[in-house]
Amino acid sequence: MPRPRILVTNDDGIIAPGIKTLVNIVKDFGEVLVVAPDKPQSGQGHAITLEQPLRLREVDLFPGIRAFECSGTPVDCVKLSKNIVWKGENIDLCVSGINHGSNASVNILYSGTMSAAMEASLEGIDSIGFSYLDFSFDADFTQAKPYISRIILEVLKNKLKYSQLINVNIPKGEIKGVKVCRQAKGTWVEEFVQSVDPRGEPYYWMTGKFSYTDPDRDNDLKALEDGYISVVPSHHDLTHYKSIPALDFLEKINP
Amino acid sequence: MPRPRILVTNDDGIIAPGIKTLVNIVKDFGEVLVVAPDKPQSGQGHAITLEQPLRLREVDLFPGIRAFECSGTPVDCVKLSKNIVWKGENIDLCVSGINHGSNASVNILYSGTMSAAMEASLEGIDSIGFSYLDFSFDADFTQAKPYISRIILEVLKNKLKYSQLINVNIPKGEIKGVKVCRQAKGTWVEEFVQSVDPRGEPYYWMTGKFSYTDPDRDNDLKALEDGYISVVPSHHDLTHYKSIPALDFLEKINP
Repeated sequence: MPRPRILVTNDDGIIAPGIKTLVNIVKDFGEVLVVAPDKPQSGQGHAITLEQPLRLREVDLFPGIRAFECSGTPVDCVKLSKNIVWKGENIDLCVSGINHGSNASVNILYSGTMSAAMEASLEGIDSIGFSYLDFSFDADFTQAKPYISRIILEVLKNKLKYSQLINVNIPKGEIKGVKVCRQAKGTWVEEFVQSVDPRGEPYYWMTGKFSYTDPDRDNDLKALEDGYISVVPSHHDLTHYKSIPALDFLEKINP
Repeated sequence: MPRPRILVTNDDGIIAPGIKTLVNIVKDFGEVLVVAPDKPQSGQGHAITLEQPLRLREVDLFPGIRAFECSGTPVDCVKLSKNIVWKGENIDLCVSGINHGSNASVNILYSGTMSAAMEASLEGIDSIGFSYLDFSFDADFTQAKPYISRIILEVLKNKLKYSQLINVNIPKGEIKGVKVCRQAKGTWVEEFVQSVDPRGEPYYWMTGKFSYTDPDRDNDLKALEDGYISVVPSHHDLTHYKSIPALDFLEKINP
């Protein structure tokens, strides 16, 4: 069997400790390519760069591993990896992260880490986004490492059958095991810090608390609360099928 | 009945003809607030601004209508509308667009117009993204206008029952009616224009063709091809439920 081609990316930027840990985990699993943003790109969601040229520079950050920093978003990184660096060759797996901070619940929508993995899954590539529940730059990934390694090896062996994207979140502290579950319902309750800049002009700076609104228990936030790694199979078909018949009143609009 | 509070936003920027048309349609339907980006933000997806302050400036662009331009993304616009301008008061409807160009199929993921509407739906607000299949700045919305007006009035009357988000795409040319359908499968086949800048440094610029890979007929691209307005009820739960039992091999990973 040929060695699998593994693409590594993230949204915290190519010098973040999380991606360094992830590269160290996969470096012996196959032919590894790193293409990651040249600066932090948290909260970039599925943004792509249309109105600007993109830069791609080979960097020597990971001994023995081909790596590029990219001026664009995490999704741009995946597109450039496929089209420019690996020129349309088959990619077996994309791993994104390890994100510094949670991407559980609806945070999958805002996350550049998860959007990069989703973009790869759109291209038919098995993709895993890894996030660790510690926002700090110097997060300690020691306990998470063996689990990440085993999850990747299992996915390489079994393949992802239906959805080709999984959202993996890892709790801090003692890990009790792995739960495959659904995305929790929740929402951000924003507060904007409001102030004036040195020229006297007003500005707003987003902050907020996450509000957990899910009454049931079979979801990722609950799994994490209980000390389990959460795995949510995710996909890009946003159709809400149950609503299709409920909207028949719109089909009565005729020319 | 009190007049409904209607938020209008887009991703093409506050001076785009599409949003002007949309404001003209809704201005008599309720109390209207416009908060839109101060520059084009196409392809921004669900990006939010975390590392920068945001600016919000009241502008006099739409006679008799309160309007603000915002330095952030479309999703930032929705968050600021709710928290700063309308200070947590109830919003009855969010309309986003009219986008210059299609947001059918997987383009919902990349679209700032649709992400703004999705953000409002996350907050429990009925939300509609409108897109017209003409990318040009001077697109002529004349034929689309009466349909947009009727769709908004029907949604205000009937409310959105399950999913609170609909993705409405409007074909150019003769309109045959409205089809409620699912999101088509498809993918972008990218090509990157590759060149060197005036300093001799290489750059890449994204371009591409959309590839329609959906064999079945009950989808938005087919409806548009046939001359119908497509309406796809959409949502933010990305869980792929069918894959949950298929991933039980991951639950065997124990401490």
